[in-house]
Amino acid sequence: MKENYKPVIGITIGDPSGIGPEIIIKALRTEEIYQHCRPFVIGSVKILERAALKALGEEELKTLVIQKPSEAVYTYGIINVVETGDYDGDLLEWGREQELAGQIAMDAVNKSIELGLAGELDAVTTAPINKVAIKMAGVEQAGHTEIYLDGTGADYVLTMFDCFGMRVFHLSRHMSLRNAIDYATKEHVLADVERIDIQLRKLGIDRPKIAVAGINPHCGEGGLFGDEEMLEITPAVEAAKKMGINAVGPIPPDTLFSRGRKGEFDAILAMYHDQGHMPCKTLDLERSVSVTLGLPFIRCSVDHGTAFDIAGKGIATNVSMVAAIETTIKYAVAMHKER
Amino acid sequence: MKENYKPVIGITIGDPSGIGPEIIIKALRTEEIYQHCRPFVIGSVKILERAALKALGEEELKTLVIQKPSEAVYTYGIINVVETGDYDGDLLEWGREQELAGQIAMDAVNKSIELGLAGELDAVTTAPINKVAIKMAGVEQAGHTEIYLDGTGADYVLTMFDCFGMRVFHLSRHMSLRNAIDYATKEHVLADVERIDIQLRKLGIDRPKIAVAGINPHCGEGGLFGDEEMLEITPAVEAAKKMGINAVGPIPPDTLFSRGRKGEFDAILAMYHDQGHMPCKTLDLERSVSVTLGLPFIRCSVDHGTAFDIAGKGIATNVSMVAAIETTIKYAVAMHKER
Repeated sequence: MKENYKPVIGITIGDPSGIGPEIIIKALRTEEIYQHCRPFVIGSVKILERAALKALGEEELKTLVIQKPSEAVYTYGIINVVETGDYDGDLLEWGREQELAGQIAMDAVNKSIELGLAGELDAVTTAPINKVAIKMAGVEQAGHTEIYLDGTGADYVLTMFDCFGMRVFHLSRHMSLRNAIDYATKEHVLADVERIDIQLRKLGIDRPKIAVAGINPHCGEGGLFGDEEMLEITPAVEAAKKMGINAVGPIPPDTLFSRGRKGEFDAILAMYHDQGHMPCKTLDLERSVSVTLGLPFIRCSVDHGTAFDIAGKGIATNVSMVAAIETTIKYAVAMHKER
Repeated sequence: MKENYKPVIGITIGDPSGIGPEIIIKALRTEEIYQHCRPFVIGSVKILERAALKALGEEELKTLVIQKPSEAVYTYGIINVVETGDYDGDLLEWGREQELAGQIAMDAVNKSIELGLAGELDAVTTAPINKVAIKMAGVEQAGHTEIYLDGTGADYVLTMFDCFGMRVFHLSRHMSLRNAIDYATKEHVLADVERIDIQLRKLGIDRPKIAVAGINPHCGEGGLFGDEEMLEITPAVEAAKKMGINAVGPIPPDTLFSRGRKGEFDAILAMYHDQGHMPCKTLDLERSVSVTLGLPFIRCSVDHGTAFDIAGKGIATNVSMVAAIETTIKYAVAMHKER
């Protein structure tokens, strides 16, 4: 029975002046999604209707307002909505940072955390928010990841790309490349390898094989060009092995991902932002889904922004949102099985 | 008539204790190659026969010894060979660094330079050599690129990856990532952009659009994380534009190659080795062909090594070698048209 478990998935509406609402509506027209999960939107019927009318030119949208997921009717064609407030959509403009838009986006995120902590949902798929707009609405954190970390009280989060069957983690993200090299210490690498090991076991992967990337070309060829592998990364991998973790590496960055694509590893730990982002986004810009692990529930995100330039025009593709929901289902089912 | 020009292409035999000879024989069984170029091998009939017999289990190999390409018979099924010496193949072992093997490899490379400078060939495809073996044979240079640079007396060479329709150049290659960041000065970036512009015009590309990569995630987001873009790369791009060069950038590394795949640029200048290598090799490890520009003739190389572990077993695939010859044809024809 567990095999056919249909996870309850909350989809946050995102910034309503961006493409979030319209791509959610478009994505929920994929019948397969209803076959594999129980989806509902966290946001506002009015905002969805506005997107349906203005962006997609549709007068009617079948919605059902619910207080919590257990009240929902998971029938294809009906969009269940947990409402977070009564917003005046007429005050919103498309494609611009606005306090109200930031507030609506944040209300949905906060509601998803509340429902997640209460065990009312298995996982969350987030539509894009705008950093400036949430700041206008009084939010301190830089983005989704930090908000979920603080909001759930988790000890840490790991951001993973699910890309062509590879699970790609990043030792660091938004710091300069120079600082990222400094950050790649034995201590940091080992800590992340341990966390990846723990989180992947929670997803049902026994003794996950974790590939640790090098930093320098060809891993420095024995110190000939760069010694970070010798001084930091190799010691971290060795220490992880001694702890019984199935870690391998450091592996030369340039061939790591072609090996990864063939299924050689359960996880790849990239040493800096672009080392993981470049191969994934080059392979498929639209289908790189970002997964946050370490929270009490799974959270997946489309890997694009609010796309203010095309918002409200109905031309945004739902490919990323569908991919994000599919990935959410995959990991929510995996986590459910292990419970 | 120029459209149907069939370039004269010399294929160097590579290290005979590696997979070079066997993949050359296998590649030249692709009839299409003879339809689009006039190929000949630079090396030794004995060494080819040894590979045919020992690696491929074939007693017979149709070869024709020639002194120079003009004597060749470019009929599918016949392998034309310019001999560089009378070698005793029985002295060679498979899969080991040896002075004799290094010597045979170098003789072929030197002969290709001689023929190239004499205008006897349009382009060269090189089979892999072994750095240790050529050192045993008294060679000082680190590899093919340096040997061709010195041997032809060229002012500079540019190494370009031809990958999924993208032309990817590297500002630096075999240096540590820290040193590569230091190397990415306005002066160096501008010099490479100028050279790329010159070389691509020689290949018939009018006003090539050259995308210059950033170094930091999202190009540092205005100095928030990393200032190399502001201090070095942007000024280089601006200076290039003032010179009339169609340069753009710096472009965030993580989305650069997905844009490149869609054909947005004629060239991409990566700021460090792995920035260019990772996307290309992730897309297709076997078909990333390395092209050397700046020489009096085109030189292309398979993007793998001697593969000592499988040499002489007949199991090496010819995919890379075929791709390398096809790329050689493409650029040799382009260069011929511009002459």
